[in-house]
Amino acid sequence: MAQLWSNHNTIFTAKPSPLATFISIIVLCILGFYTLHYVHSPSPLSSSQNALRFHQTFLSAASNDTVATYLRHLTMHPHVAGTQPSNETANYVLSHFKGLGLDAHSVPYKALLSYPTHSSLSLHFSNGTRADLPLSEWGGTRKIGVDGVVRPYHAYSPSGAVSHAKAVFVNLGRDEDYRLLGRVGVNVSGCVVLARRGNLPRFAVVEKAAAHGAAAVLLYTEGGGSGYRFRKGFERGTVMSGVGDPLSPGWAGVSGGESLSVDDADVSRRFPKIPSMPLSSEAAETILVSLGRAPVPAQWRKSVTSKVRRVGPGPTMVDFNYQGEKKVATIHDVFAVIRGLEEPDRYVLLGNHRDAWTYGAVDPNSGTAALLDIARRFARMRDLGWTPRRTLVFCSWDAEEFGMIGSTEWVEQNLGNLGSRAVAYLNVDCAVQGPGFNAGATPQLDNLLLEVLKKVKDPDLEGSTLYRNWADRDSQNVITRLGRVDSDFAAFVQHSGIPSIDLYYGRDFPVYHTAFDSYEWMTNYGDPLFQRHVAVAGVWGLLALRLADDSILPFNYCSYAEQLKGHTELLSKFLDGIGYLSPLTTSIQEFASVAKEIEIEIEAQMLREQESSTSELVTLKKRALNDRLMLTERGFLDTDGLDGKRWFKHLIYGPTNDLESELDFFPGIADAKLRSAGMNLRQRQALIQHEIWRVARAVQRATSALRGELS
Amino acid sequence: MAQLWSNHNTIFTAKPSPLATFISIIVLCILGFYTLHYVHSPSPLSSSQNALRFHQTFLSAASNDTVATYLRHLTMHPHVAGTQPSNETANYVLSHFKGLGLDAHSVPYKALLSYPTHSSLSLHFSNGTRADLPLSEWGGTRKIGVDGVVRPYHAYSPSGAVSHAKAVFVNLGRDEDYRLLGRVGVNVSGCVVLARRGNLPRFAVVEKAAAHGAAAVLLYTEGGGSGYRFRKGFERGTVMSGVGDPLSPGWAGVSGGESLSVDDADVSRRFPKIPSMPLSSEAAETILVSLGRAPVPAQWRKSVTSKVRRVGPGPTMVDFNYQGEKKVATIHDVFAVIRGLEEPDRYVLLGNHRDAWTYGAVDPNSGTAALLDIARRFARMRDLGWTPRRTLVFCSWDAEEFGMIGSTEWVEQNLGNLGSRAVAYLNVDCAVQGPGFNAGATPQLDNLLLEVLKKVKDPDLEGSTLYRNWADRDSQNVITRLGRVDSDFAAFVQHSGIPSIDLYYGRDFPVYHTAFDSYEWMTNYGDPLFQRHVAVAGVWGLLALRLADDSILPFNYCSYAEQLKGHTELLSKFLDGIGYLSPLTTSIQEFASVAKEIEIEIEAQMLREQESSTSELVTLKKRALNDRLMLTERGFLDTDGLDGKRWFKHLIYGPTNDLESELDFFPGIADAKLRSAGMNLRQRQALIQHEIWRVARAVQRATSALRGELS
Repeated sequence: MAQLWSNHNTIFTAKPSPLATFISIIVLCILGFYTLHYVHSPSPLSSSQNALRFHQTFLSAASNDTVATYLRHLTMHPHVAGTQPSNETANYVLSHFKGLGLDAHSVPYKALLSYPTHSSLSLHFSNGTRADLPLSEWGGTRKIGVDGVVRPYHAYSPSGAVSHAKAVFVNLGRDEDYRLLGRVGVNVSGCVVLARRGNLPRFAVVEKAAAHGAAAVLLYTEGGGSGYRFRKGFERGTVMSGVGDPLSPGWAGVSGGESLSVDDADVSRRFPKIPSMPLSSEAAETILVSLGRAPVPAQWRKSVTSKVRRVGPGPTMVDFNYQGEKKVATIHDVFAVIRGLEEPDRYVLLGNHRDAWTYGAVDPNSGTAALLDIARRFARMRDLGWTPRRTLVFCSWDAEEFGMIGSTEWVEQNLGNLGSRAVAYLNVDCAVQGPGFNAGATPQLDNLLLEVLKKVKDPDLEGSTLYRNWADRDSQNVITRLGRVDSDFAAFVQHSGIPSIDLYYGRDFPVYHTAFDSYEWMTNYGDPLFQRHVAVAGVWGLLALRLADDSILPFNYCSYAEQLKGHTELLSKFLDGIGYLSPLTTSIQEFASVAKEIEIEIEAQMLREQESSTSELVTLKKRALNDRLMLTERGFLDTDGLDGKRWFKHLIYGPTNDLESELDFFPGIADAKLRSAGMNLRQRQALIQHEIWRVARAVQRATSALRGELS
Repeated sequence: MAQLWSNHNTIFTAKPSPLATFISIIVLCILGFYTLHYVHSPSPLSSSQNALRFHQTFLSAASNDTVATYLRHLTMHPHVAGTQPSNETANYVLSHFKGLGLDAHSVPYKALLSYPTHSSLSLHFSNGTRADLPLSEWGGTRKIGVDGVVRPYHAYSPSGAVSHAKAVFVNLGRDEDYRLLGRVGVNVSGCVVLARRGNLPRFAVVEKAAAHGAAAVLLYTEGGGSGYRFRKGFERGTVMSGVGDPLSPGWAGVSGGESLSVDDADVSRRFPKIPSMPLSSEAAETILVSLGRAPVPAQWRKSVTSKVRRVGPGPTMVDFNYQGEKKVATIHDVFAVIRGLEEPDRYVLLGNHRDAWTYGAVDPNSGTAALLDIARRFARMRDLGWTPRRTLVFCSWDAEEFGMIGSTEWVEQNLGNLGSRAVAYLNVDCAVQGPGFNAGATPQLDNLLLEVLKKVKDPDLEGSTLYRNWADRDSQNVITRLGRVDSDFAAFVQHSGIPSIDLYYGRDFPVYHTAFDSYEWMTNYGDPLFQRHVAVAGVWGLLALRLADDSILPFNYCSYAEQLKGHTELLSKFLDGIGYLSPLTTSIQEFASVAKEIEIEIEAQMLREQESSTSELVTLKKRALNDRLMLTERGFLDTDGLDGKRWFKHLIYGPTNDLESELDFFPGIADAKLRSAGMNLRQRQALIQHEIWRVARAVQRATSALRGELS
């Protein structure tokens, strides 16, 4: 503006004449209009200013019926990844997006999947009788059950048959369970191990059993009290460790791309060495009550009914047979894109997987139905004139159940552009499992999440918002963190450092991964009126809208700093004096102080935007500020990743090798403590201290990104 | 614009009145001015538009005298990194920057350096006589020589004494040299090996000698024909492998940060296991002519004078003694920043190291003098009203001679911000070694370099530009690539994927790393009138100005695609049928096609800028385009890096393990060929093919960044 005035100064110093006076008036008018225009009128093309009223449109466009219809369609047939019915769900989602006029496409990947071909299980009781246990919800031995439901199996289990092996119960199959068994003289070597599903991942249960010499594993899930029928349910699931297609570790399994051989050591180490199968809790009880020998340890009494007195081994003997095949199949991720107007190169991603072990009414298509409804509402908003500031991407992942394969391959293929352009990833897997809203987030998104919860009605509490219920709990403790490897946020958070949120209603549900996870179950138990679906969609969509439309990204790093402080306090107890934490606490203090500074900068920028035009300088200043906010999370990534599992790059949130660890953050430090268990004190300290340093430097990198200055 | 018209439409449809007519005129004038202003007048705050005339100012502000004065000051005293005289050069540079009114600061790092404490070398000839060889340019045994020049040594050599060992000549110390010796029955075990410096890095010469059982190494450099005096020169240098402070591998060695112990295996493996020292060619000849036994192999005859007939071992016996100390010292990188107006968060970096083995008139302070002169000229331009569009950063590195330590530590500390913000790094080490302009570049900068050469006068050819001479050669072959690890661009290109250029005059010079590398040598031989300094500064500064001021980054990826095709043709010959190259050629074709597309986009954007205002949309569109151009090079990085040297992340340009390889690109493939030498054909193919795939995927990542779209 300064230069503009001086450009015209000559006119004012010229000798006054009628013409000059007229020109002066014109010029004054021009300048007046110019100033007025710059100060007050919004840019006609800007979308951000109008976004807020569209957010209300979004909420009011909710429709329970529509969500129900989507879910009905999606759950018509069972749709395990890699099968024809699964491809049909891909087409359904793609057609839906296209029907809305969205820019939609499908991306295929080749991946090694796994299917059962035969299974049987017979018991020989001590009284000489024999029983064939049912190995499916519908009984019988058909490979494909009623209406095409795949028979219960553990994906990637090796094929194997074991004859006349003793059955033995190992509780949850944790190290401490085997220690307890060892103490009462129980040796599981050569036995068929029966374990109850707890917090250990399936592959870990099988791995530990194999390490103790077991011949095969049966894994059952106590269905809870929701009706006897569900006790006949079998929890299918994968027993592969790690994430993504095993034949293309670290890169995308595109057609024509590099593909390792199945017998490559890097591939086969991800599969268990002994076969396993899931069992219904009803069938498990048949075995459990027949066991003799060692009595149930006192510590396990809660685990089993009082009918179970002894853990074996034997006298019941088991004939176990599982035959399956691993084969390369084509999977399909489906996308719809709403291109941002001002910042098309900044992405807000909404993701949910589509593949299911059976009908998938809860897992995952309650989430898919919500996703499709958000797309419908956004399309309507677009018809009303709304365009987001940033690009919105709907992601419908395939083959999550086999090990987050669809999302992992896509993230691997797009790592560069995601790293430099992705603002946030919003995941919903099982949208509704039952009552009670839950959320996990990387901590810079905590505040945004709470703000959004204030805008969404609580479907289970008349006249209240989701926030009320939430605030009644201690918010600090109820937003979980995303270090788990159990849904599609893993590749986004743990491999790529993209701020993420995970939303779901309910926690455990009795029909998890069973043939009973159907539309019928949802309408009878999970969400009969589909209000909870609508609530999740409301939160999910509003989060996306805020992230896509807010002029300044709604990230708060003071929350992150607070959370890191909290983590460090727990770490201190966990380490119990081994290693010094000062490098970490110092770097967190610095992070907290820069987080405060940027809050002030954000306020100044907001003021600037209100007061001045969208000149190139203001536009670029905002862009730079947003880039700092966006890229800070990437600082927590370490190029070397976690020791022994380098794909996991995030040093704050990721999986620990100690699967029973009480620490669900700082996984490298937890691993170091576990690994150093047999070492002398000096070695332990050195190993743990190095990991503390690595985390401290990760926090420094995040600080440096947030500050946005070179040293 | 659309909304503006409709806002005022009501006025035109109102019933005409004198007031309305007047208002109409005013409004028309306003609109006229507005349109005029938007279409033709440059934004008053924009710097880019005015940049071009300042580029002429830059060239005309050159001054040979000033450059000479800077060089005189810098080379007053020898200034090995970590010593007081070296710190004084840091202060000199810092004061210079500050004196110009630039925003300057110094960043200290702790690093493990290495200095000699004692050295001696005695010969026992077969005739019973004995000679103490001089171990410095000035003779004598003082630790610090004439005017404080450090005595000749190999930094990081272990201390060690060897008595009465046979001397043996091994030519350049390559594997083929040892093979040749083996064939004539020469065993170097227990000997003091004498080698002539060729293309092998020093550490490799020592490592190979140690592998053959040698007890110590003497390394001499044939000084060329430039006067007998220089044959008394000793080439100091580092024998550490890898780059950066050995105590902080992969992270910055900041005060109070993590520091490994010197005896940590990760540290000590970077140092040779046997001691070594440099020797003058004069002293080397004394040994060479006294050797007996095996005759000089025919293949080596060119290597040595005709006076040398035999290679030993013996009969001459050697007493070798080198004592040195490794110690942690503080080094200082010095920076000056000229903050960009529109894009302060985009960096163009000009870097040169400051530390020298002796006076450093060529290496590196000819470059420093040029850097200081560019800073002077830029400061003057700033006083005349110029501000760059992007931020310019002058970098004066310390401890390059020990292994690119200053630049490496700083890059490690700033990796995140450099990765997301650095546009280009422009390196000059020895600006002037003699006649003949040379340049290396990552290939997207080739065209820019040639354009700039057209603007700079050739100091050695009246009335010609540097381009003329250049164009007479075949440009495709004379711009070298940056896979070498011999100057500060290593961390920028090979660790961080930042487009880079390296400039220098002359190639080999006879006083390299000797006490004769002084101001006197420069004024007598290197550049008596300092015209070549001025030419390098001209190219260097203009490159920086174009990169900092051009509205669209002057990157051309078609050149890169062409170069990759050329590399692949050479690779095909190199592999000679092992492995199939189709994944690589396919991905390069795709890269080439996207490179063409973006050329068209760039033209469209330039047109758009001429035709329309700097609205938010145009501004952000340009920013997004520039970001794609900037980030493409990062795609060549691989998180796993090169096998066995993971710090090197760039799969196109980086060091090969086969130090005699004819391939100076695709280092991972060259390594795989070397590593697979003893394997069967199937294993060889698998290993090499995997590396071809990795490079193909790197090219795909670059393509994806350049395209800027998700899959």
